[in-house]
Amino acid sequence: MAEASVKPVPLLKDELDIVIPTIRNLDFLEMWRPFFQPYHLIIVQDGDPSKTIKVPEGFDYELFNRNDINRILGPKASCISFKDSACRCFGYMVSKKKYIFTIDDDCFVAKDPSGKDINALEQHIKNLLSPSTPYFFNTLYDPYREGTDFVRGYPFSLREGAPTAVSHGLWLNIPDYDAPTQLVRPHERNTRYVDAVLTIPKGTLFPMCGMNLAFNRELIGPAMYFGLMGDGHPTGRYDDMWAGWCMKVICDHLGLGVKTGLPYIWHSKASNPFVNLKKEYKGIFWQEEIIPSFQSASLPKECSSVQNCYLELSKQVKDKLGKVDPYFNKLADAMVTWIEAWDELNGAAK
Amino acid sequence: MAEASVKPVPLLKDELDIVIPTIRNLDFLEMWRPFFQPYHLIIVQDGDPSKTIKVPEGFDYELFNRNDINRILGPKASCISFKDSACRCFGYMVSKKKYIFTIDDDCFVAKDPSGKDINALEQHIKNLLSPSTPYFFNTLYDPYREGTDFVRGYPFSLREGAPTAVSHGLWLNIPDYDAPTQLVRPHERNTRYVDAVLTIPKGTLFPMCGMNLAFNRELIGPAMYFGLMGDGHPTGRYDDMWAGWCMKVICDHLGLGVKTGLPYIWHSKASNPFVNLKKEYKGIFWQEEIIPSFQSASLPKECSSVQNCYLELSKQVKDKLGKVDPYFNKLADAMVTWIEAWDELNGAAK
Repeated sequence: MAEASVKPVPLLKDELDIVIPTIRNLDFLEMWRPFFQPYHLIIVQDGDPSKTIKVPEGFDYELFNRNDINRILGPKASCISFKDSACRCFGYMVSKKKYIFTIDDDCFVAKDPSGKDINALEQHIKNLLSPSTPYFFNTLYDPYREGTDFVRGYPFSLREGAPTAVSHGLWLNIPDYDAPTQLVRPHERNTRYVDAVLTIPKGTLFPMCGMNLAFNRELIGPAMYFGLMGDGHPTGRYDDMWAGWCMKVICDHLGLGVKTGLPYIWHSKASNPFVNLKKEYKGIFWQEEIIPSFQSASLPKECSSVQNCYLELSKQVKDKLGKVDPYFNKLADAMVTWIEAWDELNGAAK
Repeated sequence: MAEASVKPVPLLKDELDIVIPTIRNLDFLEMWRPFFQPYHLIIVQDGDPSKTIKVPEGFDYELFNRNDINRILGPKASCISFKDSACRCFGYMVSKKKYIFTIDDDCFVAKDPSGKDINALEQHIKNLLSPSTPYFFNTLYDPYREGTDFVRGYPFSLREGAPTAVSHGLWLNIPDYDAPTQLVRPHERNTRYVDAVLTIPKGTLFPMCGMNLAFNRELIGPAMYFGLMGDGHPTGRYDDMWAGWCMKVICDHLGLGVKTGLPYIWHSKASNPFVNLKKEYKGIFWQEEIIPSFQSASLPKECSSVQNCYLELSKQVKDKLGKVDPYFNKLADAMVTWIEAWDELNGAAK
């Protein structure tokens, strides 16, 4: 294992799209140019379509604004959020590539402890191309990294691992805190570089952040729906969380792995905690019911495609969460619309 | 949370015993003197009782050899392994303290990336005194460490955490590999200092290594039985693994947490892989059946003490593993004897 991973990491430039919600910050792409220029960018604009986003020269990109989304999806465009970065999942749907990397425009290149720029994308590719270990915890973390292996007591039958569907990267500087924590710890910065990648074990949920995230679209794409947020909806900042809960339940069911840890990006600025509180406050109490409901979710054996799993989950959302708030009935319907739209653009699951 | 953990770490010198199996290496205690001298040491000698272990001046210690074990436990001494470091668990039983730290004599003081000596015991105490998070994964690892907190999307109802029962430390230099991995990777050294402590999620098993391990004896002591290894038994090097599987199932049932990660010790030398292979080979194929059986183990609600849980597990071992090898019937009986002996010395569970 160790030897295999010392091989050069493939760029996958014809197999990976970078999906970015609205770019407000011109420095963003300049900073990432050495790493992103080989790739095709899909920019999904979350607000007023009459505003133009200036993309610097030399990048290969497509830009989708609300008019494009409406034109491409017709009435099914209702499942894509407006005026919220949750709209980025439209980019996952229109991509034709095997892998997606998505990143926010306030995330810059971080440095490792030696002062070297971190090529976040390269680390995500490493994570996605090597297996995961969801069935038993390896105490030296990812056993497929160079210099590491499975420790004593790790069952040999599990050392082949499971295919990795998702690579969840982390953030130096501004940590990804909720509004109450932001308010209480205004000065807290994440300065701890934890040199680890690990698999989130089967049966364990985690808060998936969309800031610095990569996934295998062929394995898990249809589960990466970022829900109904922003304009016309009662909550925000739960788009990635929603995708994370659904995705993890489906990965566990289908035998796919989810990794977290490296790579780090430099999260440059905290969003406004007062605005965040307003967006989040319903989510903060809803999550107390949503998370146990996902923890106890179980999918029937017959669900063998991501799409089938996702449609089954949408039913469970309606049954179990509809009573929490009528919003969840709308969301459950949007989950179905999302799968219909996905299949229209990508062909149905076999 | 962050502020609370900046407080000085209590030494707990009247509440913690250090349990060490036979010390073959005179440098060992000298190297640890600055850190260990305040504590009471319990040395459990694993071989010929006529040999004497020379403990340097200035340490407060008790030494138990086989004659002592036989004298103290009478016929119940049969549950304590002979000629194997598994005998260390006798030390857990005779201790009267709340916390135990156990370490092997080939484990030296490691250095952190800044070159400073790591006070392993202090980090274990930090781990044990702060809660665990077994019910949901925090992507910035232990939220109770200084400079860290719970990330966005972490349910507020779970932020109080669960009491921590076990702190599993790691090893720089020689990794804890099984014999086949040692044979295949003779030159591999662990040089990666991962600056993290994390909770092993509920429902997830892991390979617990006894080299550098601390636990709360009041919370989990009776589950820390290191089994029947060495002289007269068909396997070795599974003593800590056995304790780890049993302990984790019981912690999950009782709502207790298990942490792994920091602190590191410097593991100075690899044991002989050929000798290890001979000790391990039965364990290597048995673990393929043992681990799934522990993964599916469930304890009835009525089991509310560690002792009750452990006796229930011993029945399940007999039922489920007795057919794998008659050794497991003997081991199941020894589990019962261990609990009887524990209760004799410590008083039964309330």
